Amino acid sequence: MSVHPMWGKYPTLYTELTSVLDLMEHSIQISNKDISTAILTMINAGGKLLRPAYLLLFSQFGSQNDPEKVTALAASLEMLHTASLIHDDVVDESTLRRGLPTIQAHFDKKTAVYAGDYLFVCCFKLLSTYASSLKSVQLNVSGMEKILTGEMGQMASLYNTNMTVKQYLQNISGKTAELFALSCFIGAYENGTSEAFAKKCGKIGENIGIAFQILDDILDYTQQADNIGKPVLLDVRNGVYSLPLIYALQKDAPALLPYLQKKEQMTDEDVRMVHSLVRKLGGVAQAEEAAQKYTDTALQAIRKLPKNGGNTKQLLLAITQELVTRKN
Amino acid sequence: MSVHPMWGKYPTLYTELTSVLDLMEHSIQISNKDISTAILTMINAGGKLLRPAYLLLFSQFGSQNDPEKVTALAASLEMLHTASLIHDDVVDESTLRRGLPTIQAHFDKKTAVYAGDYLFVCCFKLLSTYASSLKSVQLNVSGMEKILTGEMGQMASLYNTNMTVKQYLQNISGKTAELFALSCFIGAYENGTSEAFAKKCGKIGENIGIAFQILDDILDYTQQADNIGKPVLLDVRNGVYSLPLIYALQKDAPALLPYLQKKEQMTDEDVRMVHSLVRKLGGVAQAEEAAQKYTDTALQAIRKLPKNGGNTKQLLLAITQELVTRKN
Repeated sequence: MSVHPMWGKYPTLYTELTSVLDLMEHSIQISNKDISTAILTMINAGGKLLRPAYLLLFSQFGSQNDPEKVTALAASLEMLHTASLIHDDVVDESTLRRGLPTIQAHFDKKTAVYAGDYLFVCCFKLLSTYASSLKSVQLNVSGMEKILTGEMGQMASLYNTNMTVKQYLQNISGKTAELFALSCFIGAYENGTSEAFAKKCGKIGENIGIAFQILDDILDYTQQADNIGKPVLLDVRNGVYSLPLIYALQKDAPALLPYLQKKEQMTDEDVRMVHSLVRKLGGVAQAEEAAQKYTDTALQAIRKLPKNGGNTKQLLLAITQELVTRKN
Repeated sequence: MSVHPMWGKYPTLYTELTSVLDLMEHSIQISNKDISTAILTMINAGGKLLRPAYLLLFSQFGSQNDPEKVTALAASLEMLHTASLIHDDVVDESTLRRGLPTIQAHFDKKTAVYAGDYLFVCCFKLLSTYASSLKSVQLNVSGMEKILTGEMGQMASLYNTNMTVKQYLQNISGKTAELFALSCFIGAYENGTSEAFAKKCGKIGENIGIAFQILDDILDYTQQADNIGKPVLLDVRNGVYSLPLIYALQKDAPALLPYLQKKEQMTDEDVRMVHSLVRKLGGVAQAEEAAQKYTDTALQAIRKLPKNGGNTKQLLLAITQELVTRKN
């Protein structure tokens, strides 16, 4: 069990996140060794645990004090996230995740499909045991629905060289931002804040999530595979056109189209040319501005949150700022 | 929209099942046309709707009268069933289901993985909207967990020529019987019966489910592909050894092992030899006896149910008897 070293400087959060990982591990109760090992390896591969961290932090604004419940809800959302990563890797035929072989690369697709399904079930097991009402379950389900709709939207817009910034934002709102929003909302709401306040927290999470995903997509254009633990050249060849490329296409489509039109047949050299063109055409810089805009909106809203006695606001500001300056 | 013709002689049930199909169709709200079409085609391919039918019938023993709720819960469980069929077809690489190409044969594995995920979400959407308490959601989740554990158990025992009857029963208890049990339990419980009474109903469902699955496995040895709408020769080659084969192995393993040990390399002729040996060695007849035993237990328990004013008991007896004499 190992919490990502980025949390080392926040000892309380580090301890709480260790409990979350611990509970996730103990919730996996299946006799099929392959699937069990596959899930445990994935859980312990050092994901950043951002969604549980935000859930834990926003829970501080509520009046209730039930660490067991907060831990369970945080574990529940991280399991949902892990389930969707596993199924995404099946769909994208990815071979590498968090620096390790993906489940379907190490075992096979069968194991990966059922491992994802099992984590979905575990998510709902924790949620229906610890949520205070059916309403929280409904909100979670509706969040899951948006996440899947985002994934499917991305699937429908593969290889679309005319994709607009708006479509991209819609896809990532579902695919990524929704789960950040849900984490912040559930953290606050399930610990006794008003629904209106919890919705504000959810909105902050949404902006953080959008900034986070844009940054993730930028890293594909600026980093080497060994730095970010997944293959960087895969996205463009698989037809996933993200914000830096969309901006670059708006600047000079004729320069990029000859490469992109080869689709799956793109060579490594073609992909490297596209990456280089995207940087030269200012796609990365423009995407960085966009990420900064969403981060600033989130930071402003965090500053307006009430003081809650502890240092939660300072932590939220520090962690959120760190996210947009990260290099992997 | 088409309810299976087997329900034609039960007009009330036919109408109710039509509402269930209708609600399932209307719950699918996704813009990705491929996935939407894939799911709707699967829903309308004429599945038997046995689980919703049992849920509807057992709801008659409760004192509440809320057709909208009963329809929603029935749709919810059928969606869970459909989701697991779709993911099973991905895992088994099946090409045919209900006489039509499977989703991954007609579209691709990506579509099939997300289509299954989406139906899981829809199941929980209906359930968390209509269930009367978190407890029903928990029971449902725990049912889902057992279903997945059964599927994974089956995966772990592939190509196991030493599989025991007990292991087989454990696998199908999860894989099939659990959802029948859940349908009967939820039908009664959510309509106001006592938990103890609902558990009795669940037990009846479990026995029906076991009999149903044994019979399904027998049909693989007695029917042609065009009769049952799925490829009959696939199971043995894929390493799924069901009750008729297990009994035959107990009688004369040396006759069967030379074929089975070829695993995926079995030719169509090898598979036909195995099928013929299983019948000759009495594996089919012995499995039929086992199915009859579970059916009889279910029928006896149904006869002991209270009269509920209507003809529910007669319907349950008729339908359950029909199940074990079906030829496809």
